[in-house]
Amino acid sequence: MTHPRTVTELADFLGGVVQGDGTVLISGLASLESAGPETLTFLANPKYASKVAETAAGAVLMAPGAERYGRTVIEVANPYLGFAKLLALFYTSPHQPLGVLPHAMVSETATIGTGASIYPGAFIGTNVAVGNRTIVYPGAVLYDNVMVGDDCVIHANAVIRERCRIGNRCVLQPGAVIGSDGFGYAPDGNSYYPIPQIGIVVLDDDVEIGANSCIDRAAIEVTRIRRGTKLDNLVQIAHNCQIGEDCMIVSQVGISGSAKIGNHVTLAGQVGVAGHLTIGDNVIVGAQSGVPSSLAANAAYSGTPAIPHKEWLKSAIAVPRLPELKKTVSSLEKRIAELETIVKQNSQER
Amino acid sequence: MTHPRTVTELADFLGGVVQGDGTVLISGLASLESAGPETLTFLANPKYASKVAETAAGAVLMAPGAERYGRTVIEVANPYLGFAKLLALFYTSPHQPLGVLPHAMVSETATIGTGASIYPGAFIGTNVAVGNRTIVYPGAVLYDNVMVGDDCVIHANAVIRERCRIGNRCVLQPGAVIGSDGFGYAPDGNSYYPIPQIGIVVLDDDVEIGANSCIDRAAIEVTRIRRGTKLDNLVQIAHNCQIGEDCMIVSQVGISGSAKIGNHVTLAGQVGVAGHLTIGDNVIVGAQSGVPSSLAANAAYSGTPAIPHKEWLKSAIAVPRLPELKKTVSSLEKRIAELETIVKQNSQER
Amino acid sequence: MTHPRTVTELADFLGGVVQGDGTVLISGLASLESAGPETLTFLANPKYASKVAETAAGAVLMAPGAERYGRTVIEVANPYLGFAKLLALFYTSPHQPLGVLPHAMVSETATIGTGASIYPGAFIGTNVAVGNRTIVYPGAVLYDNVMVGDDCVIHANAVIRERCRIGNRCVLQPGAVIGSDGFGYAPDGNSYYPIPQIGIVVLDDDVEIGANSCIDRAAIEVTRIRRGTKLDNLVQIAHNCQIGEDCMIVSQVGISGSAKIGNHVTLAGQVGVAGHLTIGDNVIVGAQSGVPSSLAANAAYSGTPAIPHKEWLKSAIAVPRLPELKKTVSSLEKRIAELETIVKQNSQER
Repeated sequence: MTHPRTVTELADFLGGVVQGDGTVLISGLASLESAGPETLTFLANPKYASKVAETAAGAVLMAPGAERYGRTVIEVANPYLGFAKLLALFYTSPHQPLGVLPHAMVSETATIGTGASIYPGAFIGTNVAVGNRTIVYPGAVLYDNVMVGDDCVIHANAVIRERCRIGNRCVLQPGAVIGSDGFGYAPDGNSYYPIPQIGIVVLDDDVEIGANSCIDRAAIEVTRIRRGTKLDNLVQIAHNCQIGEDCMIVSQVGISGSAKIGNHVTLAGQVGVAGHLTIGDNVIVGAQSGVPSSLAANAAYSGTPAIPHKEWLKSAIAVPRLPELKKTVSSLEKRIAELETIVKQNSQER
Repeated sequence: MTHPRTVTELADFLGGVVQGDGTVLISGLASLESAGPETLTFLANPKYASKVAETAAGAVLMAPGAERYGRTVIEVANPYLGFAKLLALFYTSPHQPLGVLPHAMVSETATIGTGASIYPGAFIGTNVAVGNRTIVYPGAVLYDNVMVGDDCVIHANAVIRERCRIGNRCVLQPGAVIGSDGFGYAPDGNSYYPIPQIGIVVLDDDVEIGANSCIDRAAIEVTRIRRGTKLDNLVQIAHNCQIGEDCMIVSQVGISGSAKIGNHVTLAGQVGVAGHLTIGDNVIVGAQSGVPSSLAANAAYSGTPAIPHKEWLKSAIAVPRLPELKKTVSSLEKRIAELETIVKQNSQER
Repeated sequence: MTHPRTVTELADFLGGVVQGDGTVLISGLASLESAGPETLTFLANPKYASKVAETAAGAVLMAPGAERYGRTVIEVANPYLGFAKLLALFYTSPHQPLGVLPHAMVSETATIGTGASIYPGAFIGTNVAVGNRTIVYPGAVLYDNVMVGDDCVIHANAVIRERCRIGNRCVLQPGAVIGSDGFGYAPDGNSYYPIPQIGIVVLDDDVEIGANSCIDRAAIEVTRIRRGTKLDNLVQIAHNCQIGEDCMIVSQVGISGSAKIGNHVTLAGQVGVAGHLTIGDNVIVGAQSGVPSSLAANAAYSGTPAIPHKEWLKSAIAVPRLPELKKTVSSLEKRIAELETIVKQNSQER
């Protein structure tokens, strides 16, 4: 944690506007409920607006125009984003450049950028290029001819296989695997012949990969994840996938080979996506859904097989009532049979 | 495997009562079917009681009062537990304390307990504390300021990130990741700004984490798993989760952020749990279920969305019969239309 | 990439028959669309047969009897397999034997085969046997008494725990874990007592394990995966499982304890299989299905619980139409009530 700052300093940092006493000293951040006079809090959800009146916080981050109940306030368009940036300001500090530490295993042909840190037990293969200020933690393994950009963090025991390329400001959480062989086999009688996976993986800038997630290298060309996309833990991306920009791929999602995912797509936890299909921009797929075929852009889907989310909600409610529906149908059947008997009788009597 | 022991010795070890010849020598354990005269077997499930008559075992572990068919028997309240304890007695031996082995990478500021074993290739960061008799296998990485209690086993390539705390008698299987960054991003236009994850993970005593499972550190405070809870392989626990005591979290379960799980909860394989909800004590959730909202204590649930298990069973049976039900409804529709025609006709004729 | 070869040389390599000019020089492979005069392409799917007329490829691999549109052709029974073999011929080269490299941590009691390569940062425990030409990448950990056969590839940070045995020509992708403790606990009041998992894992020849997949050791005996079976990434195999030959287990599948899977079984992505059941030979289970009980051989299944695939298709279509069906039933109910009123009236009037 760093030194206290005035509300005015923080407003300048965020490009916000102070309402109230800009000289108040802030030394940390907290929630609306737990904040004290030296901490700053934030109001992002209007639902909690009334809590601003009661908070003990020294200052509140909020959207312009919100009722400030006499508080000292910093107005910013996106208070949640502002809070995130202040968290970084107060509670994180840049990693000290350590260079290549003893017991790091670095090939003589590797290039290590200025201000980089290569920890003991990290392995850097031949012709690898590691960018400036990039950190490679213990046990991380970069196979031959890997390229990693500037300001990346490669956490412990992450693996990047041969020839894969990582952009700038990428983060690999511990145990992430980039460039494992795609799951491709040619049937050969009853057995399977492994198809050489000679392609690579490319991660563009600002991509983050969760712990123990796996991205398979392409069979021949490139498995690609574009700028800004974030993967949670234990995600599987199969060979030849093309994932767009600024996607959110939540934990335990699996995407099959050669799928094309658009920009700004959200796949919630445990979703499964079949291969050789296209998911349009801005699609949201609900948790545990199964996507067997392409999905049009700008819509939400759920279920297995995935259908428009609103339709799915109706059928999801209907399924548990299915036994009841069956009973209703059985009783209708009986009533119809009775009616038929009577009507037939009446007709004959006539 | 250690030396043979008499039935009386084994009964004393378990706090059980001998019926029959306590001098019989036992040198190992086996199932009812494969046991020989020098091995001990057990009867836990009354369904197999008659097999006791036929087993060639030298002795049988069983609950008091079960028919012993003239066998030498050790009576214990929980024969399955007794068998597990004898497996440990006969087939496991305490790990020899090895100290810090050559090629282990241990910071000068780290504290290593008495009788601990730090293998070659393990990394122990600055200010780390490793408890007495704890074993750290090759490739395991303990970031700075980590605390690990006594009698823990940290298997190969497990990772514990900065400041996380592990209790006593905890086991991390290979590749387990403790303290990876939570999946938290603030929307910033179309892009996402990573929210610093400054919290930690705390595992209480006797917690076990399966291979390649991931526990994310809290955004600000603590992701916590309480005493005695066991996680299987490839489980995902998101940031800020609170998991109670003595839970069983089976393989490939995913629990979203800020979920609160009670004590003695069982989540079967591949279950998904949404964030910011509460699951009560003693809840059981069936395999592959999806839990979108809180679940009351002391009950079993299944399905997506999860409903009481018994109701789910009925609807699960009904779904495959849905096409048949649809046909029935179509035929009813036709019969009603016919009836309507006749009845209308009859009414007009009158 | 290696030197160019004539069509006749390639036909000899594959055991195929040349139609056309066998002297054409081929220096690489490409798809039907992107091939040029020095590259060879293939036709596996008859759907694309007409593309052979238009391709610029120097030669085409195809099944005997297909229309060759005047192209130079190599006829082979299985063009896809042939293409895979040529990929290996043109684009891969055997790993150079490196021996035990500096900074590899190899026990003095370990046996390392001829032509093997043990990378820096790999750990080889006491009494381990590593076969001829086997490659162990950085950070891979072989616990004591492990046996690995000839021509295996153990990728970075894979872990093989004590006493497990790996056949010949096996591949472990990065982070794969073989021999983690099975998830076995004996209830002891509210708590759980860990049952020692004293068994092992055996992988037969030609088994491949995906990145970060986990195979638990047996409680007492052997968890076994038979010849030729391939596992994708993030797969979970629980203790005591028996997996047959030539199975394809796709990403994120989970198989519970003591399950028996036949030969040539395909489990698609995210399938869950319960414990203590049998899946017959040649079974195919569709993605995300849940298998609660045994499945008969030579059939395809889908759904949770899994039913014959064709039945599942029908019910999967019917579920989204369930709200509509409910409306139909409600309207029928109304129409029947009206009929009943009229018919009752008519009967009374008579």
